[in-house]
Parts: sequence; C-alpha cells; structure tokens
Amino acid sequence: MKKIINDPNEVVHDMTEGMIAAHSDELKQISGTTVIAKVNAPISGKVGVISGGGSGHEPAHAGYVGNGMLDAAVAGEVFTSPAPDQVLEAIKAADGGAGVFLVIKNYTGDVLNFEMAAELAEAEGIKVEKVVVNDDVAVDDPSSRRGIAGTIFVHKVAGAKAEQGGSLEEVKAAADKAVNNMRSMGMAMTPCIVPAAGSPSFQLGENEMEIGIGIHGESGIERKEITAADDIAQELTDRVLNDFDFTGEAAVMINGLGSTPEMELYIVNKKVQSILAEKGITVYKTFVGEYLTSLEMTGCSVTLLKLDDELKTLLDARAQTPAFHS
Amino acid sequence: MKKIINDPNEVVHDMTEGMIAAHSDELKQISGTTVIAKVNAPISGKVGVISGGGSGHEPAHAGYVGNGMLDAAVAGEVFTSPAPDQVLEAIKAADGGAGVFLVIKNYTGDVLNFEMAAELAEAEGIKVEKVVVNDDVAVDDPSSRRGIAGTIFVHKVAGAKAEQGGSLEEVKAAADKAVNNMRSMGMAMTPCIVPAAGSPSFQLGENEMEIGIGIHGESGIERKEITAADDIAQELTDRVLNDFDFTGEAAVMINGLGSTPEMELYIVNKKVQSILAEKGITVYKTFVGEYLTSLEMTGCSVTLLKLDDELKTLLDARAQTPAFHS
Repeated sequence: MKKIINDPNEVVHDMTEGMIAAHSDELKQISGTTVIAKVNAPISGKVGVISGGGSGHEPAHAGYVGNGMLDAAVAGEVFTSPAPDQVLEAIKAADGGAGVFLVIKNYTGDVLNFEMAAELAEAEGIKVEKVVVNDDVAVDDPSSRRGIAGTIFVHKVAGAKAEQGGSLEEVKAAADKAVNNMRSMGMAMTPCIVPAAGSPSFQLGENEMEIGIGIHGESGIERKEITAADDIAQELTDRVLNDFDFTGEAAVMINGLGSTPEMELYIVNKKVQSILAEKGITVYKTFVGEYLTSLEMTGCSVTLLKLDDELKTLLDARAQTPAFHS
Repeated sequence: MKKIINDPNEVVHDMTEGMIAAHSDELKQISGTTVIAKVNAPISGKVGVISGGGSGHEPAHAGYVGNGMLDAAVAGEVFTSPAPDQVLEAIKAADGGAGVFLVIKNYTGDVLNFEMAAELAEAEGIKVEKVVVNDDVAVDDPSSRRGIAGTIFVHKVAGAKAEQGGSLEEVKAAADKAVNNMRSMGMAMTPCIVPAAGSPSFQLGENEMEIGIGIHGESGIERKEITAADDIAQELTDRVLNDFDFTGEAAVMINGLGSTPEMELYIVNKKVQSILAEKGITVYKTFVGEYLTSLEMTGCSVTLLKLDDELKTLLDARAQTPAFHS
C-alpha cells in the first residue's frame, strides 16, 4: 500500500489536525469531535448549513466550510458514516438560532445517522431541515440514487441562500430545487485503497473501465474496454441528458476522483461542452477539478445543474473556503 | 495505459481547448499558439508576467493566469519545453508597453528557449527581465537545482508586484527575493506515464519510494523503503531547513504530485507544522494541494518561503485565477 500515512487507523485524526493547522484563520475543530466549523460559527440569526459523511472524499466536506458555503462539516472514518452524536455536534456548532440545514448524500448510513442526529437536535430545541442529494443516474431507481459530485453544488446553493439571510424554509427550497435540477454520471479506471483495509475493494483489468461506478466502488452499469475520452464523455453526458430535460442554461462540473490528471478532466470538458452546444444547452459556468474524490481512484464524473435566475445568483454569490472560491 | 485521452499526440491541444471552454470569461488562447492569456491582456502600462514550460504539470501554468498572477502562460508538449517562437507569442500577448517579466523553471530547455525568446522580443523593442526558479534542494549544486512547486510562489509575488504598478525592475527585485528565500524538497512513490510514450519512464518497487526525485522523474537522492508520513515529512523538511536560515516568518506549501490524496497532504502538513513550531519558525500562511503536478505521479513536496513585510503583502494581495484565489 503506497500511502503517505502514519497509523492507518489514525488517518482522519491526523488529517483533521493537519487541516486545522493549515487553515486556522478560517476553520476550527470542535474539541473532542471530528467536526470542523467556521472559525466564527455559529453566526447568530443565520441559518447554519452543514454536511458530512465518510472521509476519503476530500476536499469534501470540510474544504467547503467557510463564508457562503458550510458552517460545519462532520467526518466519519474513511468511507464510513459519522455517528449520530458527531452529526449532532456539527448541528450544534452551526446553530445560530435560525435553524440548521443538513446536506446529506443518499447512502443508507448517512441518511440514518443524520436523521437520528436531527431528531436529537430537535429534542434540544434546534429547528432542523434537510435535503438528500441523489444525483447519480447510474442507479435507475431515483430513491436509491447515490449522492456524488453534485453535492458540492448543493453546498453552494444552500450556503449562499443562508448567507443572504434566507430562512430555513427558503434554504431548503433552494437546495431542493438544486437537487431536483441536477444529474451526475461517473466512471473509474482504477480502484482506491482504504488505509485500514490495505487492499483495494475491487479490481479492474488492465484495459478495463467501469461506467457508473460509485465513489466507494459500488458496482456500476457496465465494465468494458477503455475507449477514447470523447466516447467516455459522450456516454456520461448522454446518460445525464436522457434523465432530465436540461433545455436552457446549466452549470457543468467535471469532477476528478483523485488520480486523474487535470489535463484529462479538461479533455473530457472539451467534448462535454461540444455535446451541450449541439443540444442547444447554454453553459453558464463550468467547474473542472477535484471536488469530491475517492482517495486515489482514477476516473471522473460529469454533473449538470439546470439553472434559473435564483440558482445563478446563488452560484455566483461570494464564497470563500479552502476548496471553493467565487 | 489507463488514461482518459483521445490521440496521445493531441493531449495538449485537447486540454487547451477544454480549458478555454471552461474559463472563457477569464482566459483566451492566442490563435495558432499554445499560449493562454488573460482575456483582457495585454494591459496597457502594466508589466506583463508570463511563465510556462512543458505540459503535464497542471494546474501549472495556465491555471495561474488571471488578475494578480500571470498575464500569459505558454505550454510545450508533455514534459517538453515550449519552442522559442511560442514563448515569444506569450511575451507579445503580455506586453502592455511596460516590459514583460519571465518566470522560468531551471531546466536546460526552458532556460534556453525562454532566453532565446527574450532576445527576439528585445529585438522587437519589448523590454524583458527574468528570474530562474531553482528551489529544489535535492540537487546540491545551486546552479543545477530544478524549479519545482515553489514556482507558484514566484508567480504570486511577481504577479502581485506587477498588479500594484511595480516597474519591471521592481517586479524582478521581488521575484529575485522570493527565489533567494525559498527552498523545496520532494519525494515520489509511483511514476507517471507520458501519453505519447505509453509507459513509465522509471519504476519503483512495491514498497519503495524515492526521496528528492524530480517532477519529470529525474533521479533523486535515495531510494528506500516507504516510511511513515511523519518520517517522510521530517526528511523533506530537514533538507529544506538545512539549506537556508528560515528563522522568522515563512509561507509553507505542501504540494501533491498528482495522485496523492489531499488526506495524505494534510497528514504531511501536520508534521511539517510541528517541526517548524519546534524550530521557532512562525508560519504565516499554508498552502496544501496540487499546485504543480507530474501527471498522475504519487508523491509530494515541501516548500518554505521566508517572508518579510513586502513578501507578505504580495502573498496576501488579491489574485483570481482558475487555480489560485487570495
């Protein structure tokens, strides 16, 4: 296992300390927890926005804590949901009296633990609302669709709405609209290794890729021989376009899963943009980079978010976090 | 070769188009060249700042084109210096009448081609100055030291000085100071594959890493068994500290070479910060991420830049580029 780590069971702890050391002017760790919050959180009268999940998806989610996005992020062990008590700590860290909004990726553990934490918070008098992100069209049944890179758009939209003074209900309405208007599709060429496991959870042949694979290696739609970037971009984009009517304006995200060079992400973007132009879809803004990763997995995903005036304003609003600026 | 590309000989062309498609509000390609310039370059009366080199180091260098950093970047083929005529195009694209400053990494081809371009530009009446970045202490002889991740600090310092209205001589003085005050040291665990070559240029054993290896796979100081992150951080930092007196305030960069998860970079940062604290060096600002990569190489480098008031101001000045915000 070629990793730059100390104790495989301490990677989240070590990472968190290293992150706080790098960004102590912006971030703080809530003592005794795996919660990273804005240095000035909670902000009185503002809706708090939190997210989180298993570690290994950096910069998601703590990299998005900052002005205009998240007030706090809670991290579980690698690819493991954070426990309800930890999520509760994140809610408390973000609670400025106007309620807290939870951005949850649609995985059984995350949904269960965030909902349990929400109940505990409500029992303590904190108003809580949530959205469950399910942008991955690799899964047919929408209720089983996983939350992948599009989650970052939801952080941005919900965070901006809260920053602008939106109520908990208004933040939820904006986030719901983003989730409803968004689809993603990914692929991978090589697996990743969870440090505590020491070996990859799946294997792909030397010339093989998997279309629709999940960010934890969940099985996808098809394993096949590696094709040209243009064909990969076409396949991912087609699947996204076939699932929702994106006519009008859209934001695009080409997300790298960890080891795919930025060069290749831009090569994918070139083709995606030409497909969208052909379809008459106007691209308002494009994001290319590593927004939600799977440790050192190789691969990428394509996300489209259909925009209206409100979503454009929220996307453009100022944000300052370690991993996202606008 | 598991890459998301089309024709291996067209990767730079495809990438450039994909990058312009993503950032057309900020960047433009100079027609018929591999030069990417600020959309409003050249800026009349401002010193132009350019950099460039072989491709494969993304986001270096075009990712740093924008307000407060570079006016233009010129890209060669993967790991290959851009030809003098292309560098000349970058100089012309950045020339607003106050001269153009060249940030060159210390590789034979880059130095030769950028200097030849500078002569051609001067023959056309453009004033040109330059700095050669040689931050890599893996090489003993300072005149042979390679330019690696610290180059991004030089982009920032020179770009900010030019943005503030500094003269060509003032931009050079600030950049020279940054180069003199800066040292880096890197390591790698796995090689990368140049697309047109199709196979790695070097190999490392299953449990082996190389300390001091270059960003194109140039041989380092020592091959040895992989150690804990803390030991790696100690070895890299010691080498940097032993080469220059960093007493006072410093900026730190923990740079990922392409495939190393952000988690691991933060784990390295944790140890680097504790070493610096022990030595009484005050860390003014820390940068953790992929700033100058080697395609999908696994590994990282540690850069220290000793700061004075001028360098702190230049580092803090506003910059807005695809890959760097401050």
